[in-house]
Amino acid sequence: MPAADSRQTTAYSDSWLEAVSDELEGVTTLPELRKDPVTGRWVIIATDRAKRPTDFVRDKVQIRGSGFCPFCYGNESKTPPEILAYRSDGSARNSPGWSLRVVANKFPALGIEGSLNRQGEGLYDKMNGIGAHEVIIETPKHDLTLATLPARQVEDVLWAYRDRIIDLKKDRRFKYILIFKNHGDAAGASLEHTHSQLIALPVVPKRVTEEVEGAREHYDFKERCIFCDIIRQEKESKVRLISENDGFLAIAPFASRFPFEIWILPKTHQCAFEESQKGEFELLAPMLKDLLSRLDRVLDFPAYNYIVHTSPIGEAAQDYYHWHMEIIPKLTKIAGFEWGTGFYINPTPPEESAKFLRDAALTFGS
Amino acid sequence: MPAADSRQTTAYSDSWLEAVSDELEGVTTLPELRKDPVTGRWVIIATDRAKRPTDFVRDKVQIRGSGFCPFCYGNESKTPPEILAYRSDGSARNSPGWSLRVVANKFPALGIEGSLNRQGEGLYDKMNGIGAHEVIIETPKHDLTLATLPARQVEDVLWAYRDRIIDLKKDRRFKYILIFKNHGDAAGASLEHTHSQLIALPVVPKRVTEEVEGAREHYDFKERCIFCDIIRQEKESKVRLISENDGFLAIAPFASRFPFEIWILPKTHQCAFEESQKGEFELLAPMLKDLLSRLDRVLDFPAYNYIVHTSPIGEAAQDYYHWHMEIIPKLTKIAGFEWGTGFYINPTPPEESAKFLRDAALTFGS
Repeated sequence: MPAADSRQTTAYSDSWLEAVSDELEGVTTLPELRKDPVTGRWVIIATDRAKRPTDFVRDKVQIRGSGFCPFCYGNESKTPPEILAYRSDGSARNSPGWSLRVVANKFPALGIEGSLNRQGEGLYDKMNGIGAHEVIIETPKHDLTLATLPARQVEDVLWAYRDRIIDLKKDRRFKYILIFKNHGDAAGASLEHTHSQLIALPVVPKRVTEEVEGAREHYDFKERCIFCDIIRQEKESKVRLISENDGFLAIAPFASRFPFEIWILPKTHQCAFEESQKGEFELLAPMLKDLLSRLDRVLDFPAYNYIVHTSPIGEAAQDYYHWHMEIIPKLTKIAGFEWGTGFYINPTPPEESAKFLRDAALTFGS
Repeated sequence: MPAADSRQTTAYSDSWLEAVSDELEGVTTLPELRKDPVTGRWVIIATDRAKRPTDFVRDKVQIRGSGFCPFCYGNESKTPPEILAYRSDGSARNSPGWSLRVVANKFPALGIEGSLNRQGEGLYDKMNGIGAHEVIIETPKHDLTLATLPARQVEDVLWAYRDRIIDLKKDRRFKYILIFKNHGDAAGASLEHTHSQLIALPVVPKRVTEEVEGAREHYDFKERCIFCDIIRQEKESKVRLISENDGFLAIAPFASRFPFEIWILPKTHQCAFEESQKGEFELLAPMLKDLLSRLDRVLDFPAYNYIVHTSPIGEAAQDYYHWHMEIIPKLTKIAGFEWGTGFYINPTPPEESAKFLRDAALTFGS
């Protein structure tokens, strides 16, 4: 007896009764194993019974706007004091009048005060959980999202990321600064008012290390950036290309772990996000807004996460790493299995995701 | 405005309104960063406002037993033909009378027929998704779980894992055989009738490779198995010890990624699960049953996953790797963020998880 939501697939879980439709039985195209060229991770790409956008059953992200919101105008005192705010009207700190505001997370995952105090415990290693955990409130308007905000305001969000990274890099305790966004309850957002987060860490996260090392190995062997190679191949083959402008390329990556996963890469080699210039953010903002609008259109307002993968602090200006954004719509339930194996099954080939997203091209204002 | 279930924490997501209780504010113990000694992964262990079992809001796993179940007696024709069955009454294949049954997954993630056909696509590498995907139906009784089955029957489940691994190892296309279990809808089970799964893969999953390599590095340096070192330290310190018998140790690992994560390790060095002997399964079965019962008692019937981590095929008989089981109760929602970083925050220190689980010791029949 299948659970009520058995059609909502888990990436690599009980697929017993989960096939999209039985009439497809008998089609025997083999799934494909694909290797991520950067990290070396293999994923299973289901080619048979590929899931289309409507096959994913899930809750639509809706902004209800009911109840108290600490991110709205007038509630500035309900957040920790602002670290940064964009104000064009000369209004006072921690009062209305801002267009974007950065505050410390009220319940941070890491503490900002103290020293690392690295120590052993027998075989084990530990240190104090020192770091910064900040919230970027992207707009005072409660009912908008990055897909519906004016592109100019999305650009300001990118500037805020950059400003905060540059400031936090001065703190010698930090090795990595991570920008990420949870959109929608299913993607882990507990407040619906649109916001991003920043975490400064005293260690480099493992997945970033894997990418940096994979990229370095490729560079040692080929004397070329692997991301630049990917950009060249994707531009030529076009099958996984979603959109392109003068500065950026959006693709469904060859070894996508998740259906409708999107990577945005700067077309000119650049290892660190915060080295981006004005002209680049002017091109990235409308592309990001457009891609998120396409996801809303194709997948009916899905929850999603995105992360910015940039160079670890102190490893800037290299030739081998290439910053990028990864957008992951939250369509599948993940079984703990994946946590134990690092193995993914993706029910929608990236070539099909890319086609759906290409076909959803919107003309957007602002 | 917090979402309805904002108390159900995401591991590393919006913690804005997620603190367990506001009266704890002002307690300023720093979180701890801990390094997994095998893989080198850092995790954040929240020491302040640690979550207790009742702080996790979630659905209890309940067996409803309504509707059609292909795993019950009489429905043998609704599954693919059996690959293995334990029958003490001489009953015919694919008919009732079995106590345990292994069948191919009806909608497998991988195809069993064909060759790997490894090939490139420009920069990229791929191969056919060849592998085995089997389901171990642990009992014909629809209303039981591994926690409530007699220990003797749990032992048979272990024997079935072993029998299938030994058989599949003969297939030269396979590099790794993975045993896992999804229990409860939230953990990815689409059928509630208790069962495990097996997947034979033509590549070694990344997380297993990381463990094997980490263990090898430790061995190269110390000439000792790192898991044996862990066992020695945990037996001595006792703070993370959950239970122990003559053959096995159950601990909450030092750098637990998840609250109430449990590892079971054989106390005598052994690299491969399938090399276990009768006496070992006789000790492992009651321990596994007991631990799952304790989870049911402490966490009110949580969904969970477990996996068996064993040596890759053809790398057996080594001194550096040590097979073990990892049990992960599904208590937290995971933000896509973790997928992008490999970074975890665990809201319950393993020392506290271990204490709750130690205190929940049950005398169990079988």
